[in-house]
Amino acid sequence: MKKGIKIVTIGGGSSYTPELIEGFINRYQELPISELWLVDIEAGREKLEIVGALAKRMVEKAGVPIKIELTLDREKALKNADFVTTQFRVGLLDARAKDEKIPLKYDTIGQETNGPGGLFKGLRTIPVILDIVKDMEKLCPNAWLINFTNPAGMVTEAVLRHSNMKNVVGLCNGPIGIERGIAEILNVPSSEIFVEFTGLNHMVFAKRIFHNGIDVTKKVISLMTEKEENAVSLKNIADFAYEPEFFKKLNMIPIGYLRYYYKTAQMLNDQKRAFEEEGTRAQVVQKVEHELFELYKDQDLAIKPPQLSERGGAYYSEAACNLINSIYNDKRDIQTVNTRNNGAILDIDSNSAVEVNCLITKQGPIPLTTGELPVPIKGIVQQIKSFERVAAEAAVTGDYDTALLAMTINPLVSTDIDAKKMLDELLEAHKEYLPNFF
Amino acid sequence: MKKGIKIVTIGGGSSYTPELIEGFINRYQELPISELWLVDIEAGREKLEIVGALAKRMVEKAGVPIKIELTLDREKALKNADFVTTQFRVGLLDARAKDEKIPLKYDTIGQETNGPGGLFKGLRTIPVILDIVKDMEKLCPNAWLINFTNPAGMVTEAVLRHSNMKNVVGLCNGPIGIERGIAEILNVPSSEIFVEFTGLNHMVFAKRIFHNGIDVTKKVISLMTEKEENAVSLKNIADFAYEPEFFKKLNMIPIGYLRYYYKTAQMLNDQKRAFEEEGTRAQVVQKVEHELFELYKDQDLAIKPPQLSERGGAYYSEAACNLINSIYNDKRDIQTVNTRNNGAILDIDSNSAVEVNCLITKQGPIPLTTGELPVPIKGIVQQIKSFERVAAEAAVTGDYDTALLAMTINPLVSTDIDAKKMLDELLEAHKEYLPNFF
Amino acid sequence: MKKGIKIVTIGGGSSYTPELIEGFINRYQELPISELWLVDIEAGREKLEIVGALAKRMVEKAGVPIKIELTLDREKALKNADFVTTQFRVGLLDARAKDEKIPLKYDTIGQETNGPGGLFKGLRTIPVILDIVKDMEKLCPNAWLINFTNPAGMVTEAVLRHSNMKNVVGLCNGPIGIERGIAEILNVPSSEIFVEFTGLNHMVFAKRIFHNGIDVTKKVISLMTEKEENAVSLKNIADFAYEPEFFKKLNMIPIGYLRYYYKTAQMLNDQKRAFEEEGTRAQVVQKVEHELFELYKDQDLAIKPPQLSERGGAYYSEAACNLINSIYNDKRDIQTVNTRNNGAILDIDSNSAVEVNCLITKQGPIPLTTGELPVPIKGIVQQIKSFERVAAEAAVTGDYDTALLAMTINPLVSTDIDAKKMLDELLEAHKEYLPNFF
Amino acid sequence: MKKGIKIVTIGGGSSYTPELIEGFINRYQELPISELWLVDIEAGREKLEIVGALAKRMVEKAGVPIKIELTLDREKALKNADFVTTQFRVGLLDARAKDEKIPLKYDTIGQETNGPGGLFKGLRTIPVILDIVKDMEKLCPNAWLINFTNPAGMVTEAVLRHSNMKNVVGLCNGPIGIERGIAEILNVPSSEIFVEFTGLNHMVFAKRIFHNGIDVTKKVISLMTEKEENAVSLKNIADFAYEPEFFKKLNMIPIGYLRYYYKTAQMLNDQKRAFEEEGTRAQVVQKVEHELFELYKDQDLAIKPPQLSERGGAYYSEAACNLINSIYNDKRDIQTVNTRNNGAILDIDSNSAVEVNCLITKQGPIPLTTGELPVPIKGIVQQIKSFERVAAEAAVTGDYDTALLAMTINPLVSTDIDAKKMLDELLEAHKEYLPNFF
Repeated sequence: MKKGIKIVTIGGGSSYTPELIEGFINRYQELPISELWLVDIEAGREKLEIVGALAKRMVEKAGVPIKIELTLDREKALKNADFVTTQFRVGLLDARAKDEKIPLKYDTIGQETNGPGGLFKGLRTIPVILDIVKDMEKLCPNAWLINFTNPAGMVTEAVLRHSNMKNVVGLCNGPIGIERGIAEILNVPSSEIFVEFTGLNHMVFAKRIFHNGIDVTKKVISLMTEKEENAVSLKNIADFAYEPEFFKKLNMIPIGYLRYYYKTAQMLNDQKRAFEEEGTRAQVVQKVEHELFELYKDQDLAIKPPQLSERGGAYYSEAACNLINSIYNDKRDIQTVNTRNNGAILDIDSNSAVEVNCLITKQGPIPLTTGELPVPIKGIVQQIKSFERVAAEAAVTGDYDTALLAMTINPLVSTDIDAKKMLDELLEAHKEYLPNFF
Repeated sequence: MKKGIKIVTIGGGSSYTPELIEGFINRYQELPISELWLVDIEAGREKLEIVGALAKRMVEKAGVPIKIELTLDREKALKNADFVTTQFRVGLLDARAKDEKIPLKYDTIGQETNGPGGLFKGLRTIPVILDIVKDMEKLCPNAWLINFTNPAGMVTEAVLRHSNMKNVVGLCNGPIGIERGIAEILNVPSSEIFVEFTGLNHMVFAKRIFHNGIDVTKKVISLMTEKEENAVSLKNIADFAYEPEFFKKLNMIPIGYLRYYYKTAQMLNDQKRAFEEEGTRAQVVQKVEHELFELYKDQDLAIKPPQLSERGGAYYSEAACNLINSIYNDKRDIQTVNTRNNGAILDIDSNSAVEVNCLITKQGPIPLTTGELPVPIKGIVQQIKSFERVAAEAAVTGDYDTALLAMTINPLVSTDIDAKKMLDELLEAHKEYLPNFF
Repeated sequence: MKKGIKIVTIGGGSSYTPELIEGFINRYQELPISELWLVDIEAGREKLEIVGALAKRMVEKAGVPIKIELTLDREKALKNADFVTTQFRVGLLDARAKDEKIPLKYDTIGQETNGPGGLFKGLRTIPVILDIVKDMEKLCPNAWLINFTNPAGMVTEAVLRHSNMKNVVGLCNGPIGIERGIAEILNVPSSEIFVEFTGLNHMVFAKRIFHNGIDVTKKVISLMTEKEENAVSLKNIADFAYEPEFFKKLNMIPIGYLRYYYKTAQMLNDQKRAFEEEGTRAQVVQKVEHELFELYKDQDLAIKPPQLSERGGAYYSEAACNLINSIYNDKRDIQTVNTRNNGAILDIDSNSAVEVNCLITKQGPIPLTTGELPVPIKGIVQQIKSFERVAAEAAVTGDYDTALLAMTINPLVSTDIDAKKMLDELLEAHKEYLPNFF
Repeated sequence: MKKGIKIVTIGGGSSYTPELIEGFINRYQELPISELWLVDIEAGREKLEIVGALAKRMVEKAGVPIKIELTLDREKALKNADFVTTQFRVGLLDARAKDEKIPLKYDTIGQETNGPGGLFKGLRTIPVILDIVKDMEKLCPNAWLINFTNPAGMVTEAVLRHSNMKNVVGLCNGPIGIERGIAEILNVPSSEIFVEFTGLNHMVFAKRIFHNGIDVTKKVISLMTEKEENAVSLKNIADFAYEPEFFKKLNMIPIGYLRYYYKTAQMLNDQKRAFEEEGTRAQVVQKVEHELFELYKDQDLAIKPPQLSERGGAYYSEAACNLINSIYNDKRDIQTVNTRNNGAILDIDSNSAVEVNCLITKQGPIPLTTGELPVPIKGIVQQIKSFERVAAEAAVTGDYDTALLAMTINPLVSTDIDAKKMLDELLEAHKEYLPNFF
C-alpha cells in the first residue's frame, strides 16, 4: 500500500499558499498527504520562508502529519512526486504591472490574461512550464501537473501540443464562481444545479443551466438583467451589466472576461480611469500582498487569515484540492477543467485544450460532450483558440514574426502597426524573462 | 412537493417483471414509487394477471406502499407517468422463433437482434414504440421512455430520427455484464475498474479498461486468452474463444454478439446443430417461461424466484432500476446507455444513437467523449449503423425496397438474392404484425 | 433544342449594366441570349430608361440579336427565365450614405459590406432576395440566381438557410482581382497561376499560390512587401501595407477588406479624414454615377464608355458573364464563387455559404477541397460566419434582439452599448426599407 | 526550357506496356517524352526484352523521337525522372494463382484485390513500393509516382501514411469504364455526362449521374435493371445483375467489385465452378499473356496488337497517359484518381486515400467535394478502409498479429479461425516475397 501522497507546489511562496494548506488540512482524511514541498526561486526566498513557516504552524495546529518542505531545488522536490501544482508568476507582480500599463499607452486593454498582456504572460510562462514538464518526465513520470498559472488555456495548449506529457490539467476558479453565483441568484443549493460549460479558459460560457433537471437558463438571465446585483462576475473585473436584449438573445452566461470583448471601449476607459486613480491592478495587488505577508509573519497566526479571501482568487485552492482529491480517490465527480478536447466541443480540434465539464477519474479527466458551439459564440471562441495556438508556438520557438502574428490576430489589438509597437516595447520590458527571444 | 413516482411498464406481463419489482422494492427508500402500472395487450392478459398477482404479493410482503395496477388500457396508464419502461415483444416468442428459424434455411444466422431476425424484430417493434411515443407526447410529455425492447439500438435510432421525443434512453444489460466479468477476471471489486465503452447496441466494445487509474486492457485480454473460462460473454451466445493473436492485436473486448461477425460460419453451424437438437432458442425460452409462469402462479410465492436468474437477462432490471434511480435522484453517476451521440464517437453522426458511458442526470444522460473509433472497428460499427438507419426508415415507411436494401447491406446476409427471398418469406410469416407493409 | 437564353437582371437600371451588356455581346457566339430583361422599381425608372436605351444601342451596333426588354413588372420578367442576376441596391446610394456615416459617429467603421453598415445592407436586402426566390420557384424553378448584391456572403447564407432554392451562386470580383494582381506582380499570364482561395465573401484569403505547379506563395508575399505598389487590393479600399513580418508569417494574401480587421483604427481614421474632405464613399460614387448617366444619355454612345471602368467594380461583369457561360455550356472550369460549403472548408458547417474555388458545371458549382482553415485565420473567418448567420436570422425574422446580437458580435463593433445605439439610429434611418422590423 | 520528359515504368516487361506506348505515341505533340525507361527484375528479363523490342519498333514506326531504354537497374532509371509508373506484380501470375486458389479451399472468395488475396497482394507489394519511394526521394524528389499496381487503394494508403512522399496518385480504370458504360446506355457522348464518384479503390460508387446538368441517376438505373446487357461492369467479374428493388433504392452504381460483397455466395460458387472448368483466373490470364508475348515476338509487329484489348485492363493506359498529360500540361480537367482525401468524403479521415473526382493540376490532383457518404454505403466503405489501414500497417511492420487482424476484419472472411488458417497457408506459400514476415 502507498504510504502517503507527495505534493509539490511550484511557486510555493505565493500569498495563496495558506488557502491550499487549509484545503489539504480539511481533506486530510481522504487525501493523506505525507509531504508537501513548497518550491520557489531565489528571488522568492523571503516570501517562501514566511509562508512556509505559517504553513508549518497551520499543519501543527491542525494536528495532521503533513511534512512541509521548503526548497529552491526543484529537481529534488519533484523526485517521486504524485501531484505538482504550479502557481508561480515569472517576473512577479512587476512584470504584471508592465503587461497592464504598456498596452494602455496604445489605447489597448492592459490585462494579465487577455490581449497583449496575456500574450506576454504566456511567452514568459510557457518555457518555464515546459522545463518543469521535462523534469517531471524524468523524476516523476506518472505524476499529475495541476496548473493554475495563467494564461491557463494557452499554457495547457502548449503542454498538449509541444510536449509528450499527458497528465496535465489546467485549472481556473471561474466556472465554480459562476456556478455558485447562479445558485445564489436562484437561492438554491449549488448541488441542485447543473451548469453546462463550453469554451476555453477565460472564454467560457454557461451554455445551459438546469435546476433539478429543468432548463432554467432563461430564468437565470432574466433574474440577472432585472437586478444588477445578480450579475455573476469575477471580483477582479469591473462590474458592467450587458444590454438586456443582447444578453437575453445570447441566452448564455459568459465568464466575466467576455466584457473585454463585448465592452472593449468601456473596459478600456475604466482601466484608464483606475490607472489614474490607483495605478495598475498589479500595484493594487502588490499592496494587498504586502499586507498579507505582514500578517503571515505573525508567529501566533496558525490559520489562514480571513483577509486572504479578499485577495481575488476565491475558490482557487478549493478547485485545486477538489481536483487532486478526485483524481487520487477516483471520485468520478464532475469538475470544469482545461483538458484535451477529444470531441467535447465539435468545432475545436480534438487535440486542443478546452474548458469543459469533465468526469474526474484516477486516469484523469474525461470530458462530457457539449456538441457544437452555439452560432453566436463560435467566432469569438475560435478567435481566442487561433490566438492561443499561434501564441504557444511563439513562446516555444521564440520567433519574432510568430509573436507579431499572435499579437495582430488578438481581437483586443486594433492594428498590425500598434501590434508591432507593443510587441517591441513589451519584448524590451520583459527581456530578462524571455531568453528564447534574445 | 411531488407525492410519489408513477411508473408504467409496457409489456408488464413479461416473465422479467418480478426482477423489476424486486429492484423497485430494494430501492424504495431512494425511489419512492407510488404507482406501478403493468400494461399489456389482450393476447398477454393471462400472463399479466399471473405476474401482476405475484407483484402484488411481493410488495405486500416487502411492506412498501407501491400500488400495482394491471391494465390493457395503455392511454389510461400513461396519463401523468414519470417513467415508461418498454419490454414487450410484438408477436411474442412465436415471432422470435420465425426470426430464428427462417434465416437458417438460407444458411444465414437466425437471431433476434442481428441479421434478418434483428431487422424483422425492428420492423415489428418500431411502429409500436412510435405509437407509444405519440401517446406519451400527449399524456405525459415530460416522462422518460426507458426502452429495453430489442433491437434497442435500432429502436433508439428510430425514436431520435423519426419522432420529436427527446427523453428516450435505450438500455442493454451487455455492458454491465462485461464490466462485472472483467472485475471477476481481475478479482477486484467492480467499483475499482473503469471501462471505456464505445460503439452501438449489441455492437459495443470495451475499448480501454482501467484499474485504479492504470490501463490494464492488455492484462485483461491476456487473462482472457490464457484461460477460456475467463472469456467474458453473454449467457445466450455460444462460448467460442477468439484466436489469441487476433484478440491481442484488437486490444478491445467486443460484446458477445460480435462473434456473429468474427465467427459467422462457426456460429451458424452451432445454430444449426442446436436447432436440430433443441429447436430454436425461442422454443427453449418458451419452455423456460412456461416453467416460470407455473412457479409464479404459486400463491405462496412472494419473492422473485431464483430460477428467474437463469433466464438469460441478468442485470436487466438492475440496469433499468439504476437508470431510473439516477435520473430521478440526479445521481450523476456513469452508466452505459443508448442515447444521442452528440460527438461522443467522432465518426458517427451527432444525431444517431450510440451506446457509450454517460453521466446520468435529472435532465438525462450526457455522453462522455470517446474520440474516434479505433481503426479496426470503424468498419463493422459503421456497417451496423448504416443498417440500423436504413432499417429504421423501412420500419417507419413500410417501403419494400428500403427493407430489401436494409437486408442486403446487413453484414450477415450473403447475397441480394437471398436477401430478397428471406425478406419475402419473413414478410409473409410476420404479416399480422407488419401493417405498414400490407 | 432550346431556342435561346432568357436572362433577367434585377436592378437593371444600375450604372454597371453596360459592362454586363458588353460581356454578353462579346460572348454571344457561345452564349446565345435571345432576351435580356432589365427590371427595376418605380424609383429607378429614369435610370432604367437611360441605361436601357444605351443597352439597345449597344446590341444594335454589335449586330447581335439580343432583345432588350425594360420593365417594372418583375413577375412578368421572371417567367421562364434561365438566369436571374441581381445587382440592386435597396434604398439606393442614399441608404449607403447612412450606413457609412452613422457608425462614424460612434467611432466605428462605416462601410457598406462590413460592420454595422454591412449588417443593415443585409437587413434591407435579404427579404427582397427571398421574395425574388419565392417568385422564381413559381415562375422559373430551374433558373439560376446569380447574386452580385452585397453583402453577397450573408445573402447567399440566407438563401441557403432560409429558402428551398438550391440554384444560387453569390459572386464577387475580389478573387479575380487578386489573381490578376498576383499575375501582374509575377509578370506571368494569369493562366499559368493557380490560387487556392479559402474563406468567405469579403473575408477570403489566397492561401497558396502556384506558378506552373510550384508553390510561390512566399515569393509573391516577398515581392508585395518589398514594393508597395505590388500590394494587391481592391480599388475602393485605402491602400495601406501590412507590417512585413506579420504578412510573411501569415503567408497568405487576405482580400483588401481584411484591412478593416487587421488595421481597424487606421482605417477608421482614414474614413474620418475622407469624410471630412469628400463626404461618404456613397456621395463620391453618387457623383461618379451622375456623370456616368449623363454620358449614357448621349444618343451617339453605343459602347460601354471607358469611364465606367473607373467606377470600382472591375471584373464584376466579367465574373458574371463567365459564370453564366460556364454553367450554360458546362465548361467545367474553375471559378471562385459563394456556394454551399459541402466540406470544402472543414471547419465550417457543410450547409453554410463559403467563397472557394469551384468547378463550374451545368448542374452548378462543385467546390474543390481546401481542408482546414489555417490556424491564424480560423478565428476571424469563424467570427464573420457567426455574424452572417445571426444577421441572416435577424433579417428573416425582423427580431430586434437578434439584430442586436448580430451587431454586438461583429468584430468591428466595440461595445454592446454602442451596438444598441447604432442599431436604434440605423433602424430609424432605414425604417422605410425594413418592414420586417416595424 | 525543359528538354523533354523522362518517364520510368517499373514492371516494364508487362504485357500492358504496348498500350502505354501507344498512348504516349498518340499524345506526343502535347507530351514530348524524350526518354522512356522500362525497368524490370531479373525474373522478368525475357519479357522485358520482348516487349521492349516491340516498344522500340512502335516508336520507330510512329516516327516520334522517344528513346526507349531497357534496364534491370532501377536506381539508374529513376535518376531525374519526371514520372514513375508502377505496374509490376511481385511473384508474377504464379503468386496471383495462389491468392486465387488457396482461399477457395476455405470457402472464401479468391481474388487478387479483394479478400485474403487482396491482403496478400498488398503485403507483397507495399514494401516494394515503399522502397521505390525511398529511391525516388533521393534520385528524383519532384517526380510523380503514378501507381497502377493493385491493390491500388491499399498501396496509396500505405504511401500516404508510411512515407513522406506527397507526389503519389493511385490509378484504376474502373471509373472510366463506368462512365463510358453509362454514356453507352444513355447513348450520348461521354463528354455530356458528369458522374460524381465517391468511395475507395475497387469500392467506388457512381453516386449521382448528370446529363447536361440534369440528374439522370434514376433513369440510368432503370435502364440497367430493364436490360441486363446494360449492366455496367468490369470485364473480369462475372456479370450477375442486382435485384432490381435493391438497386433502385440504392440509387447508385457500384463498381463491379461490389458484387463480391452484395453477392458473396453467388460469386464464390461461380469462382468454384470456373476453377473446376478453367483453373484460376491467373491461369487463364497466364495463357492469354503467353499468347500475347508470342505475338509481341513477331519482328514485323510495330503496333499494339488488337488482341491486347481483350486482356481485361481496358482504359488502363488511357487513364495513365491522360493523368500524366494533365499534370504535365496543367490541364485542370477532372479525372477520378486515388489521392489524399482532404475532406472530399466527410466520413473518412483527411489523410486517408480515397477514389474521387479530382481537378488535375501541375501541382497534383485537387479532390472535388462529395460530402458525406450516403447512409447505405457508409458501412461497407468504412469496412474496406479499416481493412486497408490495418493491412498497410501489417505490410510495413511484418507483424503476424496485425496481419491476422486485417484478415479477420475483412468482410469476405467468415471467421477468425479460417482467417488464421488462410493466413498461415498464404504466408507459407508466398514466403519468398514476404521478407518482412520471415
